[in-house]
Amino acid sequence: MIRLFVPDPLAAGAEIVLGPEQTHYLVNVMRQAVGADLALFNGRDGEWKALIVETRKKVSLLRCEARLRAQQVPPDLDLIVAAVKRSRLETIVEKAAELGARRVRIVLTQRTNAERVRIERLTVIATEAAEQTGRLDVPEVLEPVKLNLLLDGWDGGRSLLFCDEGGDARPVIEALGGASGPCAILIGPEGGFSPEERQRLRGLPFVVPATLGPRILRADTAAISAMTLWQAAAGDWR
Amino acid sequence: MIRLFVPDPLAAGAEIVLGPEQTHYLVNVMRQAVGADLALFNGRDGEWKALIVETRKKVSLLRCEARLRAQQVPPDLDLIVAAVKRSRLETIVEKAAELGARRVRIVLTQRTNAERVRIERLTVIATEAAEQTGRLDVPEVLEPVKLNLLLDGWDGGRSLLFCDEGGDARPVIEALGGASGPCAILIGPEGGFSPEERQRLRGLPFVVPATLGPRILRADTAAISAMTLWQAAAGDWR
Repeated sequence: MIRLFVPDPLAAGAEIVLGPEQTHYLVNVMRQAVGADLALFNGRDGEWKALIVETRKKVSLLRCEARLRAQQVPPDLDLIVAAVKRSRLETIVEKAAELGARRVRIVLTQRTNAERVRIERLTVIATEAAEQTGRLDVPEVLEPVKLNLLLDGWDGGRSLLFCDEGGDARPVIEALGGASGPCAILIGPEGGFSPEERQRLRGLPFVVPATLGPRILRADTAAISAMTLWQAAAGDWR
Repeated sequence: MIRLFVPDPLAAGAEIVLGPEQTHYLVNVMRQAVGADLALFNGRDGEWKALIVETRKKVSLLRCEARLRAQQVPPDLDLIVAAVKRSRLETIVEKAAELGARRVRIVLTQRTNAERVRIERLTVIATEAAEQTGRLDVPEVLEPVKLNLLLDGWDGGRSLLFCDEGGDARPVIEALGGASGPCAILIGPEGGFSPEERQRLRGLPFVVPATLGPRILRADTAAISAMTLWQAAAGDWR
Protein backbone atom coordinates (compact mmCIF):
# COMPACT_ATOMS: atom_id res chain seq x y z
CA MET A 1 0.00 0.00 0.00
CA ILE A 2 1.27 3.49 -0.88
CA ARG A 3 2.09 5.55 2.22
CA LEU A 4 2.34 9.33 2.35
CA PHE A 5 3.35 11.71 5.10
CA VAL A 6 1.12 14.78 5.38
CA PRO A 7 1.26 17.61 7.92
CA ASP A 8 -2.55 17.81 8.33
CA PRO A 9 -4.57 16.42 11.25
CA LEU A 10 -5.96 12.95 10.45
CA ALA A 11 -9.39 11.82 11.63
CA ALA A 12 -12.40 9.97 10.21
CA GLY A 13 -13.83 12.03 7.36
CA ALA A 14 -10.96 14.55 7.29
CA GLU A 15 -10.26 15.92 3.81
CA ILE A 16 -6.62 16.24 2.81
CA VAL A 17 -5.34 18.28 -0.11
CA LEU A 18 -2.07 17.12 -1.66
CA GLY A 19 0.18 19.64 -3.44
CA PRO A 20 1.85 19.27 -6.85
CA GLU A 21 4.70 16.95 -5.82
CA GLN A 22 2.65 14.37 -3.96
CA THR A 23 -0.04 14.56 -6.65
CA HIS A 24 2.57 13.90 -9.34
CA TYR A 25 3.93 10.95 -7.37
CA LEU A 26 0.49 9.49 -6.73
CA VAL A 27 -1.04 9.99 -10.17
CA ASN A 28 1.85 9.89 -12.63
CA VAL A 29 4.48 7.77 -10.89
CA MET A 30 2.25 5.32 -9.03
CA ARG A 31 -0.66 5.59 -11.51
CA GLN A 32 -3.40 5.84 -8.90
CA ALA A 33 -6.84 7.13 -9.81
CA VAL A 34 -10.00 8.33 -8.05
CA GLY A 35 -11.32 5.61 -5.77
CA ALA A 36 -7.92 4.06 -4.98
CA ASP A 37 -6.85 3.93 -1.38
CA LEU A 38 -3.56 4.68 0.31
CA ALA A 39 -2.19 5.17 3.82
CA LEU A 40 -1.48 8.54 5.44
CA PHE A 41 0.48 9.43 8.59
CA ASN A 42 1.45 12.71 10.19
CA GLY A 43 3.59 11.71 13.15
CA ARG A 44 0.75 12.31 15.64
CA ASP A 45 -2.54 10.61 14.74
CA GLY A 46 -1.46 7.12 13.69
CA GLU A 47 -1.87 5.65 10.21
CA TRP A 48 -5.09 6.22 8.27
CA LYS A 49 -6.57 4.62 5.21
CA ALA A 50 -7.62 7.36 2.79
CA LEU A 51 -9.47 7.39 -0.54
CA ILE A 52 -8.60 9.47 -3.55
CA VAL A 53 -11.69 11.65 -4.10
CA GLU A 54 -10.51 13.92 -6.88
CA THR A 55 -7.35 14.54 -8.88
CA ARG A 56 -6.42 17.56 -10.96
CA LYS A 57 -3.23 18.51 -12.66
CA LYS A 58 -1.49 19.91 -9.57
CA VAL A 59 -3.65 19.02 -6.62
CA SER A 60 -5.54 16.02 -5.38
CA LEU A 61 -8.16 15.56 -2.71
CA LEU A 62 -8.19 12.62 -0.29
CA ARG A 63 -10.64 11.62 2.41
CA CYS A 64 -9.64 9.76 5.57
CA GLU A 65 -11.64 6.60 6.04
CA ALA A 66 -10.44 4.55 8.96
CA ARG A 67 -7.49 4.33 11.28
CA LEU A 68 -5.17 1.44 10.39
CA ARG A 69 -2.70 1.76 13.26
CA ALA A 70 -2.45 3.80 16.43
CA GLN A 71 0.45 6.21 16.77
CA GLN A 72 3.55 4.57 18.19
CA VAL A 73 6.46 6.23 19.91
CA PRO A 74 9.74 4.80 18.60
CA PRO A 75 12.71 4.29 20.94
CA ASP A 76 14.43 7.56 21.83
CA LEU A 77 17.50 7.33 19.62
CA ASP A 78 19.34 10.29 18.11
CA LEU A 79 22.00 9.95 15.44
CA ILE A 80 24.71 12.60 15.58
CA VAL A 81 26.90 12.58 12.53
CA ALA A 82 29.73 14.77 11.29
CA ALA A 83 28.99 16.69 8.10
CA VAL A 84 30.51 14.16 5.69
CA LYS A 85 30.30 14.24 1.89
CA ARG A 86 26.82 14.97 0.59
CA SER A 87 26.08 11.57 -0.98
CA ARG A 88 27.11 9.71 2.20
CA LEU A 89 25.15 12.13 4.40
CA GLU A 90 22.07 11.49 2.27
CA THR A 91 22.54 7.74 2.65
CA ILE A 92 22.95 8.16 6.41
CA VAL A 93 19.69 10.13 6.71
CA GLU A 94 17.82 7.54 4.62
CA LYS A 95 19.16 4.74 6.81
CA ALA A 96 18.41 6.64 10.05
CA ALA A 97 14.78 6.71 8.94
CA GLU A 98 14.80 2.96 8.17
CA LEU A 99 16.58 2.09 11.40
CA GLY A 100 14.23 4.04 13.62
CA ALA A 101 16.25 7.07 14.76
CA ARG A 102 14.05 9.92 15.99
CA ARG A 103 16.43 12.74 15.14
CA VAL A 104 19.50 13.26 12.97
CA ARG A 105 21.77 16.00 14.18
CA ILE A 106 24.69 17.12 12.06
CA VAL A 107 27.85 18.26 13.83
CA LEU A 108 30.94 20.16 12.80
CA THR A 109 34.15 18.71 14.22
CA GLN A 110 37.76 19.79 13.96
CA ARG A 111 38.31 17.53 10.98
CA THR A 112 35.00 18.21 9.25
CA ASN A 113 35.31 19.61 5.75
CA ALA A 114 32.18 21.69 6.04
CA GLU A 115 30.34 21.29 2.79
CA ARG A 116 27.09 23.18 2.79
CA VAL A 117 24.43 21.01 4.41
CA ARG A 118 21.01 21.22 2.78
CA ILE A 119 18.61 20.46 5.61
CA GLU A 120 15.57 20.85 3.37
CA ARG A 121 16.83 18.20 0.94
CA LEU A 122 17.76 15.87 3.80
CA THR A 123 14.26 16.27 5.25
CA VAL A 124 12.75 15.20 1.92
CA ILE A 125 14.97 12.10 1.97
CA ALA A 126 13.98 11.35 5.58
CA THR A 127 10.30 11.73 4.69
CA GLU A 128 10.44 9.44 1.66
CA ALA A 129 12.38 6.82 3.60
CA ALA A 130 9.87 7.02 6.48
CA GLU A 131 7.02 6.52 4.01
CA GLN A 132 8.67 3.43 2.58
CA THR A 133 9.90 1.84 5.78
CA GLY A 134 6.45 1.89 7.37
CA ARG A 135 7.11 4.10 10.38
CA LEU A 136 4.54 6.55 11.72
CA ASP A 137 6.78 9.57 12.10
CA VAL A 138 9.57 11.29 10.17
CA PRO A 139 12.95 11.73 11.82
CA GLU A 140 13.78 15.37 12.39
CA VAL A 141 16.96 16.59 10.67
CA LEU A 142 18.59 19.42 12.61
CA GLU A 143 20.86 22.26 11.50
CA PRO A 144 24.60 21.70 11.95
CA VAL A 145 26.10 22.65 15.31
CA LYS A 146 29.67 22.59 16.59
CA LEU A 147 30.51 19.42 18.53
CA ASN A 148 31.89 21.36 21.49
CA LEU A 149 28.74 23.47 21.80
CA LEU A 150 26.60 20.36 21.58
CA LEU A 151 28.57 18.74 24.40
CA ASP A 152 28.45 21.94 26.50
CA GLY A 153 24.67 21.83 26.51
CA TRP A 154 24.27 18.05 26.79
CA ASP A 155 21.37 16.62 28.81
CA GLY A 156 23.11 14.14 31.12
CA GLY A 157 20.05 11.87 31.08
CA ARG A 158 20.89 10.83 27.51
CA SER A 159 23.83 8.51 27.02
CA LEU A 160 26.16 9.16 24.09
CA LEU A 161 27.51 6.11 22.28
CA PHE A 162 30.89 7.23 21.00
CA CYS A 163 32.08 5.03 18.15
CA ASP A 164 35.78 5.30 18.77
CA GLU A 165 38.18 4.04 16.13
CA GLY A 166 41.29 4.07 18.25
CA GLY A 167 42.09 2.34 21.45
CA ASP A 168 40.53 -0.01 23.90
CA ALA A 169 36.78 0.57 23.62
CA ARG A 170 34.50 -2.43 24.10
CA PRO A 171 32.18 -3.92 21.44
CA VAL A 172 28.91 -1.97 21.15
CA ILE A 173 26.61 -4.67 22.52
CA GLU A 174 28.88 -5.26 25.51
CA ALA A 175 29.31 -1.50 26.06
CA LEU A 176 25.55 -0.97 26.01
CA GLY A 177 25.11 -3.92 28.37
CA GLY A 178 21.32 -3.93 28.48
CA ALA A 179 21.16 -0.13 28.84
CA SER A 180 17.81 1.56 28.44
CA GLY A 181 16.75 5.18 28.27
CA PRO A 182 17.48 7.90 25.72
CA CYS A 183 20.61 7.49 23.67
CA ALA A 184 22.54 9.27 20.95
CA ILE A 185 25.06 7.68 18.61
CA LEU A 186 28.03 9.81 17.56
CA ILE A 187 29.73 9.12 14.22
CA GLY A 188 32.85 11.09 13.32
CA PRO A 189 34.10 12.45 10.02
CA GLU A 190 36.15 10.35 7.58
CA GLY A 191 39.36 11.65 9.16
CA GLY A 192 38.23 10.66 12.65
CA PHE A 193 38.08 12.83 15.74
CA SER A 194 41.07 14.96 16.76
CA PRO A 195 43.05 13.90 19.86
CA GLU A 196 41.48 16.79 21.84
CA GLU A 197 37.98 15.76 20.81
CA ARG A 198 38.64 12.13 21.75
CA GLN A 199 40.06 13.16 25.11
CA ARG A 200 37.08 15.36 25.92
CA LEU A 201 34.61 12.68 24.84
CA ARG A 202 36.31 9.92 26.82
CA GLY A 203 36.17 12.09 29.96
CA LEU A 204 32.46 12.87 29.94
CA PRO A 205 30.24 10.90 32.34
CA PHE A 206 27.42 10.27 29.83
CA VAL A 207 29.75 9.01 27.09
CA VAL A 208 29.88 5.27 26.37
CA PRO A 209 32.89 4.50 24.14
CA ALA A 210 32.48 1.50 21.88
CA THR A 211 34.24 -0.10 18.95
CA LEU A 212 32.77 -1.26 15.65
CA GLY A 213 35.15 -4.14 15.00
CA PRO A 214 38.66 -4.49 13.64
CA ARG A 215 38.20 -2.91 10.20
CA ILE A 216 38.01 0.76 9.21
CA LEU A 217 34.42 1.66 8.34
CA ARG A 218 33.20 4.52 6.22
CA ALA A 219 30.93 6.97 8.02
CA ASP A 220 27.74 5.59 6.45
CA THR A 221 28.63 2.00 7.35
CA ALA A 222 29.54 3.00 10.91
CA ALA A 223 26.23 4.85 11.32
CA ILE A 224 24.17 1.93 10.02
CA SER A 225 26.07 -0.67 12.07
CA ALA A 226 25.84 1.37 15.29
CA MET A 227 22.10 2.04 14.88
CA THR A 228 21.54 -1.66 14.15
CA LEU A 229 23.40 -2.78 17.26
CA TRP A 230 21.62 -0.24 19.44
CA GLN A 231 18.22 -1.37 18.17
CA ALA A 232 19.20 -5.00 18.77
CA ALA A 233 20.57 -4.37 22.27
CA ALA A 234 18.36 -1.59 23.61
CA GLY A 235 15.73 -0.63 21.03
CA ASP A 236 12.76 -2.14 19.24
CA TRP A 237 14.58 -5.03 17.56
CA ARG A 238 14.68 -7.04 20.77
CA MET B 1 49.17 4.63 4.53
CA ILE B 2 48.05 3.79 1.00
CA ARG B 3 47.10 0.12 0.60
CA LEU B 4 46.97 -1.78 -2.68
CA PHE B 5 45.88 -5.29 -3.53
CA VAL B 6 48.19 -7.10 -5.97
CA PRO B 7 47.98 -10.66 -7.27
CA ASP B 8 51.76 -11.24 -7.05
CA PRO B 9 53.57 -13.22 -4.33
CA LEU B 10 54.89 -10.92 -1.60
CA ALA B 11 58.22 -11.54 0.13
CA ALA B 12 61.25 -9.52 1.22
CA GLY B 13 62.92 -8.04 -1.88
CA ALA B 14 60.12 -9.08 -4.25
CA GLU B 15 59.63 -6.66 -7.12
CA ILE B 16 56.07 -5.78 -8.08
CA VAL B 17 55.03 -4.14 -11.32
CA LEU B 18 51.82 -2.11 -11.21
CA GLY B 19 49.78 -1.64 -14.37
CA PRO B 20 48.26 1.56 -15.76
CA GLU B 21 45.31 1.86 -13.38
CA GLN B 22 47.16 1.39 -10.11
CA THR B 23 50.01 3.56 -11.42
CA HIS B 24 47.53 6.33 -12.24
CA TYR B 25 45.98 6.05 -8.80
CA LEU B 26 49.33 6.07 -7.03
CA VAL B 27 51.07 8.80 -9.02
CA ASN B 28 48.31 11.11 -10.23
CA VAL B 29 45.53 10.69 -7.69
CA MET B 30 47.57 10.13 -4.53
CA ARG B 31 50.62 12.10 -5.81
CA GLN B 32 53.21 9.57 -4.67
CA ALA B 33 56.75 9.63 -6.04
CA VAL B 34 59.82 7.40 -6.10
CA GLY B 35 60.96 6.65 -2.53
CA ALA B 36 57.48 6.82 -1.00
CA ASP B 37 56.19 3.74 0.79
CA LEU B 38 52.84 2.02 0.76
CA ALA B 39 51.28 -1.25 1.91
CA LEU B 40 50.59 -4.26 -0.31
CA PHE B 41 48.49 -7.36 0.28
CA ASN B 42 47.52 -10.30 -1.89
CA GLY B 43 45.18 -12.36 0.29
CA ARG B 44 47.90 -14.94 1.08
CA ASP B 45 51.18 -13.45 2.31
CA GLY B 46 50.05 -10.83 4.85
CA GLU B 47 50.61 -7.09 4.50
CA TRP B 48 53.94 -5.77 3.24
CA LYS B 49 55.56 -2.38 3.27
CA ALA B 50 56.84 -1.58 -0.22
CA LEU B 51 58.86 1.28 -1.72
CA ILE B 52 58.23 2.96 -5.04
CA VAL B 53 61.38 2.29 -7.05
CA GLU B 54 60.44 3.71 -10.43
CA THR B 55 57.42 5.29 -12.09
CA ARG B 56 56.70 5.71 -15.77
CA LYS B 57 53.63 6.83 -17.59
CA LYS B 58 51.77 3.53 -17.46
CA VAL B 59 53.73 1.29 -15.14
CA SER B 60 55.46 1.57 -11.82
CA LEU B 61 57.91 -0.66 -10.01
CA LEU B 62 57.71 -1.39 -6.29
CA ARG B 63 59.97 -3.38 -3.99
CA CYS B 64 58.74 -5.25 -0.92
CA GLU B 65 60.63 -4.21 2.19
CA ALA B 66 59.19 -5.77 5.31
CA ARG B 67 56.12 -7.60 6.44
CA LEU B 68 53.79 -5.38 8.45
CA ARG B 69 51.15 -7.97 9.41
CA ALA B 70 50.79 -11.71 9.09
CA GLN B 71 47.94 -13.07 6.98
CA GLN B 72 44.71 -13.44 8.94
CA VAL B 73 41.78 -15.63 8.12
CA PRO B 74 38.53 -13.68 8.58
CA PRO B 75 35.43 -15.41 9.98
CA ASP B 76 33.77 -17.69 7.42
CA LEU B 77 30.82 -15.51 6.42
CA ASP B 78 29.16 -15.51 3.00
CA LEU B 79 26.65 -12.93 1.89
CA ILE B 80 24.02 -14.19 -0.52
CA VAL B 81 22.00 -11.44 -2.07
CA ALA B 82 19.33 -11.29 -4.73
CA ALA B 83 20.29 -9.38 -7.89
CA VAL B 84 18.84 -6.02 -6.85
CA LYS B 85 19.26 -2.72 -8.68
CA ARG B 86 22.81 -2.04 -9.76
CA SER B 87 23.53 0.91 -7.45
CA ARG B 88 22.27 -0.98 -4.40
CA LEU B 89 24.17 -4.11 -5.38
CA GLU B 90 27.36 -2.04 -5.66
CA THR B 91 26.74 -0.60 -2.20
CA ILE B 92 26.14 -4.09 -0.82
CA VAL B 93 29.43 -5.39 -2.24
CA GLU B 94 31.34 -2.39 -0.82
CA LYS B 95 29.79 -2.96 2.59
CA ALA B 96 30.42 -6.72 2.48
CA ALA B 97 34.11 -5.91 2.11
CA GLU B 98 34.02 -3.46 5.04
CA LEU B 99 32.03 -5.84 7.22
CA GLY B 100 34.30 -8.79 6.67
CA ALA B 101 32.33 -11.15 4.43
CA ARG B 102 34.54 -13.67 2.61
CA ARG B 103 32.30 -14.16 -0.40
CA VAL B 104 29.38 -12.39 -2.04
CA ARG B 105 27.13 -14.66 -4.02
CA ILE B 106 24.36 -13.23 -6.18
CA VAL B 107 21.16 -15.22 -6.51
CA LEU B 108 18.19 -15.11 -8.84
CA THR B 109 14.88 -15.57 -7.07
CA GLN B 110 11.32 -15.74 -8.34
CA ARG B 111 10.86 -12.01 -7.78
CA THR B 112 14.28 -10.93 -9.01
CA ASN B 113 14.20 -8.50 -11.91
CA ALA B 114 17.36 -9.83 -13.46
CA GLU B 115 19.39 -6.85 -14.51
CA ARG B 116 22.70 -7.82 -15.99
CA VAL B 117 25.18 -8.33 -13.15
CA ARG B 118 28.68 -7.10 -13.94
CA ILE B 119 30.91 -9.32 -11.80
CA GLU B 120 34.07 -7.63 -13.02
CA ARG B 121 32.86 -4.20 -11.91
CA LEU B 122 31.70 -5.60 -8.57
CA THR B 123 35.13 -7.18 -8.05
CA VAL B 124 36.80 -3.79 -8.58
CA ILE B 125 34.48 -2.31 -5.96
CA ALA B 126 35.24 -5.16 -3.54
CA THR B 127 38.97 -4.68 -4.09
CA GLU B 128 38.94 -0.93 -3.49
CA ALA B 129 36.81 -1.34 -0.39
CA ALA B 130 39.16 -4.05 0.93
CA GLU B 131 42.13 -1.73 0.35
CA GLN B 132 40.47 1.05 2.32
CA THR B 133 39.00 -0.99 5.16
CA GLY B 134 42.35 -2.53 6.06
CA ARG B 135 41.59 -6.19 5.48
CA LEU B 136 44.15 -8.62 4.08
CA ASP B 137 41.98 -10.31 1.48
CA VAL B 138 39.38 -9.34 -1.09
CA PRO B 139 35.92 -10.88 -0.89
CA GLU B 140 35.18 -13.06 -3.86
CA VAL B 141 32.14 -12.02 -5.93
CA LEU B 142 30.51 -15.00 -7.60
CA GLU B 143 28.39 -15.28 -10.74
CA PRO B 144 24.60 -15.30 -10.25
CA VAL B 145 22.97 -18.64 -9.60
CA LYS B 146 19.35 -19.62 -9.12
CA LEU B 147 18.28 -19.82 -5.48
CA ASN B 148 16.80 -23.29 -5.89
CA LEU B 149 20.00 -24.66 -7.42
CA LEU B 150 22.05 -23.08 -4.66
CA LEU B 151 19.87 -24.74 -2.03
CA ASP B 152 19.97 -28.10 -3.85
CA GLY B 153 23.75 -28.18 -3.51
CA TRP B 154 24.00 -26.67 -0.03
CA ASP B 155 26.73 -27.86 2.33
CA GLY B 156 24.79 -28.67 5.48
CA GLY B 157 27.77 -27.67 7.63
CA ARG B 158 27.10 -24.01 6.84
CA SER B 159 24.10 -22.38 8.50
CA LEU B 160 21.98 -20.03 6.42
CA LEU B 161 20.64 -16.96 8.18
CA PHE B 162 17.38 -16.23 6.39
CA CYS B 163 16.29 -12.64 6.93
CA ASP B 164 12.56 -13.19 6.78
CA GLU B 165 10.28 -10.18 6.52
CA GLY B 166 7.06 -11.95 7.31
CA GLY B 167 6.01 -13.93 10.30
CA ASP B 168 7.34 -15.05 13.59
CA ALA B 169 11.12 -15.21 13.17
CA ARG B 170 13.27 -14.30 16.18
CA PRO B 171 15.69 -11.34 16.36
CA VAL B 172 19.04 -12.11 14.69
CA ILE B 173 21.16 -12.12 17.84
CA GLU B 174 18.72 -14.42 19.63
CA ALA B 175 18.37 -16.65 16.56
CA LEU B 176 22.15 -16.99 16.27
CA GLY B 177 22.37 -17.70 20.00
CA GLY B 178 26.15 -17.92 20.25
CA ALA B 179 26.39 -20.02 17.09
CA SER B 180 29.80 -20.58 15.61
CA GLY B 181 31.03 -22.15 12.39
CA PRO B 182 30.52 -21.17 8.77
CA CYS B 183 27.48 -19.07 8.00
CA ALA B 184 25.78 -17.44 5.04
CA ILE B 185 23.34 -14.55 5.20
CA LEU B 186 20.50 -14.52 2.68
CA ILE B 187 18.98 -11.20 1.61
CA GLY B 188 15.97 -11.23 -0.71
CA PRO B 189 14.93 -8.91 -3.52
CA GLU B 190 12.99 -5.69 -2.90
CA GLY B 191 9.74 -7.59 -3.48
CA GLY B 192 10.62 -10.26 -0.92
CA PHE B 193 10.68 -14.01 -1.40
CA SER B 194 7.71 -15.80 -2.94
CA PRO B 195 5.53 -17.94 -0.67
CA GLU B 196 7.07 -21.10 -2.21
CA GLU B 197 10.58 -19.85 -1.59
CA ARG B 198 9.77 -18.95 2.01
CA GLN B 199 8.20 -22.31 2.58
CA ARG B 200 11.19 -24.18 1.20
CA LEU B 201 13.63 -22.07 3.19
CA ARG B 202 11.73 -22.45 6.46
CA GLY B 203 11.76 -26.22 6.04
CA LEU B 204 15.50 -26.71 5.54
CA PRO B 205 17.51 -27.98 8.52
CA PHE B 206 20.44 -25.58 8.05
CA VAL B 207 18.23 -22.48 7.74
CA VAL B 208 18.01 -20.08 10.70
CA PRO B 209 15.11 -17.66 10.16
CA ALA B 210 15.55 -14.28 11.79
CA THR B 211 13.91 -10.86 11.73
CA LEU B 212 15.52 -7.47 11.29
CA GLY B 213 13.11 -5.44 13.38
CA PRO B 214 9.66 -3.98 12.86
CA ARG B 215 10.34 -1.72 9.87
CA ILE B 216 10.71 -2.58 6.19
CA LEU B 217 14.37 -2.35 5.18
CA ARG B 218 15.81 -1.87 1.73
CA ALA B 219 18.07 -4.69 0.55
CA ASP B 220 21.28 -2.74 1.21
CA THR B 221 20.23 -1.82 4.75
CA ALA B 222 19.16 -5.40 5.47
CA ALA B 223 22.50 -6.74 4.23
CA ILE B 224 24.53 -4.29 6.31
CA SER B 225 22.44 -4.82 9.44
CA ALA B 226 22.55 -8.60 9.17
CA MET B 227 26.32 -8.71 8.59
CA THR B 228 26.81 -6.33 11.55
CA LEU B 229 24.73 -8.48 13.88
CA TRP B 230 26.46 -11.66 12.76
CA GLN B 231 29.90 -10.13 13.35
CA ALA B 232 28.76 -8.91 16.78
CA ALA B 233 27.22 -12.24 17.79
CA ALA B 234 29.45 -14.81 16.10
CA GLY B 235 32.26 -13.07 14.19
CA ASP B 236 35.28 -10.88 14.85
CA TRP B 237 33.45 -7.96 16.52
CA ARG B 238 33.08 -9.83 19.79
